[in-house]
Amino acid sequence: MTETVSLSLAEAEALALRVLAHHGLPPGHARAIARVMVAGERDECHSHGLFRLLMCTRSLREGKVACHAEPLVSQRSPAVVAVDAQFGFSPLAFEVGSQHLVEKVRRTGIAALVINNCFHFSALWPEVESLAAHNICALAITPAHACVAPAGGRLAVFGTNPIAFSWPRPSGNPYVFDFATSAVARGEIELYRRSGRPLPVGWGIDADGAPTTDAATVLQQGAMLTFGGHKGSALATMIELLAGPLLGDLTSLESIAVDGAIGGTPRHGELILAFDPSFFSTSAPGADQARAEHLFEAITGQGARLPSQRRFEARARSMAHGVSIPRALHDDILALLA
Amino acid sequence: MTETVSLSLAEAEALALRVLAHHGLPPGHARAIARVMVAGERDECHSHGLFRLLMCTRSLREGKVACHAEPLVSQRSPAVVAVDAQFGFSPLAFEVGSQHLVEKVRRTGIAALVINNCFHFSALWPEVESLAAHNICALAITPAHACVAPAGGRLAVFGTNPIAFSWPRPSGNPYVFDFATSAVARGEIELYRRSGRPLPVGWGIDADGAPTTDAATVLQQGAMLTFGGHKGSALATMIELLAGPLLGDLTSLESIAVDGAIGGTPRHGELILAFDPSFFSTSAPGADQARAEHLFEAITGQGARLPSQRRFEARARSMAHGVSIPRALHDDILALLA
Repeated sequence: MTETVSLSLAEAEALALRVLAHHGLPPGHARAIARVMVAGERDECHSHGLFRLLMCTRSLREGKVACHAEPLVSQRSPAVVAVDAQFGFSPLAFEVGSQHLVEKVRRTGIAALVINNCFHFSALWPEVESLAAHNICALAITPAHACVAPAGGRLAVFGTNPIAFSWPRPSGNPYVFDFATSAVARGEIELYRRSGRPLPVGWGIDADGAPTTDAATVLQQGAMLTFGGHKGSALATMIELLAGPLLGDLTSLESIAVDGAIGGTPRHGELILAFDPSFFSTSAPGADQARAEHLFEAITGQGARLPSQRRFEARARSMAHGVSIPRALHDDILALLA
Repeated sequence: MTETVSLSLAEAEALALRVLAHHGLPPGHARAIARVMVAGERDECHSHGLFRLLMCTRSLREGKVACHAEPLVSQRSPAVVAVDAQFGFSPLAFEVGSQHLVEKVRRTGIAALVINNCFHFSALWPEVESLAAHNICALAITPAHACVAPAGGRLAVFGTNPIAFSWPRPSGNPYVFDFATSAVARGEIELYRRSGRPLPVGWGIDADGAPTTDAATVLQQGAMLTFGGHKGSALATMIELLAGPLLGDLTSLESIAVDGAIGGTPRHGELILAFDPSFFSTSAPGADQARAEHLFEAITGQGARLPSQRRFEARARSMAHGVSIPRALHDDILALLA
């Protein structure tokens, strides 16, 4: 059994803040990053939890990320706001930008937040969930580092290109999904490689474009595949376009070229769309929500799950009892304070 | 060999207009519908071509569709316009609404067109392509009739819920996709049933939710599946929410309940988003387009295809040589004029 260390959510946040401050991050950045890392740990998305402190501090030590970058806001239209992260981490840029996004969408019904030039390591669900808390429906997309081949191809073009969506619900947690348009997360294939297990068919190809179940081949010579064949490939293309060239920012191919090698935190843009339901419908208040709840019941009533259900269950546990992380990870994190 | 009848595009349009007028459709509706049907025939999307005259006129004869419905425009915000189709067919509502959408997006950078209470039988690609012609990037979604089960379930909740996207390209045709979030189109499963062939695994389930390759079982007692497992299922849910309750309009479950049986033209809403690239990027004009073209080259340069490539090839042929339709279909269409 792995030995673990138990932390309250406040303790986890304080630990993250200490580490980030120790590495020179100013309070605004440190707080925004600690918040998303603790949210990841709390929801038992461990790969987006405190573990990320290791990568985040490495990026800072390597000097790739602008530690003191101040997000720079520019109003592009009544419905479009842009934040230049100035080569800093994304969470503060999102926090600053999302306040403007909420103000805009209250006046225009639909609005967009553009984030440029950010280093992105966080999941997208904390972002769309934070907008759902304002009773706003949100969609977020980003490119990543190119490691995924298009349907019918053999060379990596797309990143894992996540898409996240939230729909506010009258009681409790929003409807939220956040998934990679690759067949699986890259980290999942890493885990198969470490354990020497064969991959399920459909996750990756070799250098000739032939299906392979060898994780090392997929990671080193071949490429990952999108989910859902040519349809997933089309969605991955759309995400490249809308969160890359549309914003004047990097595609996944360009992000990896800038990085020089797979492994660094991807640098690129992000597009977040917000919808204020009150502008879209003339139905009586509550009628549309009831319609949506009826849809959710039709799904869960037959035993199917909604996305994020597991995450919300984990959240309830963590809110009550705190989190526990492997002692080895805790030691590694404490070593960052040396 | 099937005997065919050759028609120029002008002849095809004139034929469609005659049939629609004969069935009482006023000129505005008739022109809008003829335009999308001829576009379908021209691009060799035969199921959305002149063949649809048979279904369209049946809907009119049955009195379900409001023949003389005038699309009613309402401005909801600087960035949101809604068109109440008043239970008429969708193409005229889109034409009327899209003019407002283009005006809005030129001022706000992002804008939305809501269509309510329309009978929808057309593909979405003619709509997003028409916006690309204005140098606008567009996304369109609709629910349909419920016939698709959520991942992990067994009962139909979603329609085939299509999503279409366009990206204007400097020379020639835009980047366009338009696909169902079901594993395949429902018509495809009908074809398997008629020919008695077994379905590929993953297209449908039986009444107990078990995978089946029997087309009749899927169509009558079971349900279709989404593409891409739980990710496709999440996207189908998003489309239900954004093009249903968000707009105060029907979900696929409600659309089929209103219809009373699978078979009639679905009645529901539609959401179209428009993006004017000039508001999203501060790059030099052309730089973003070049970045997008580089992405497309990375896909096509390795032998993978872009979506719609086949359709654009068919279009070029039809523009040069006209279209040919089976004589039996031509006879059936002429019989509609009796």
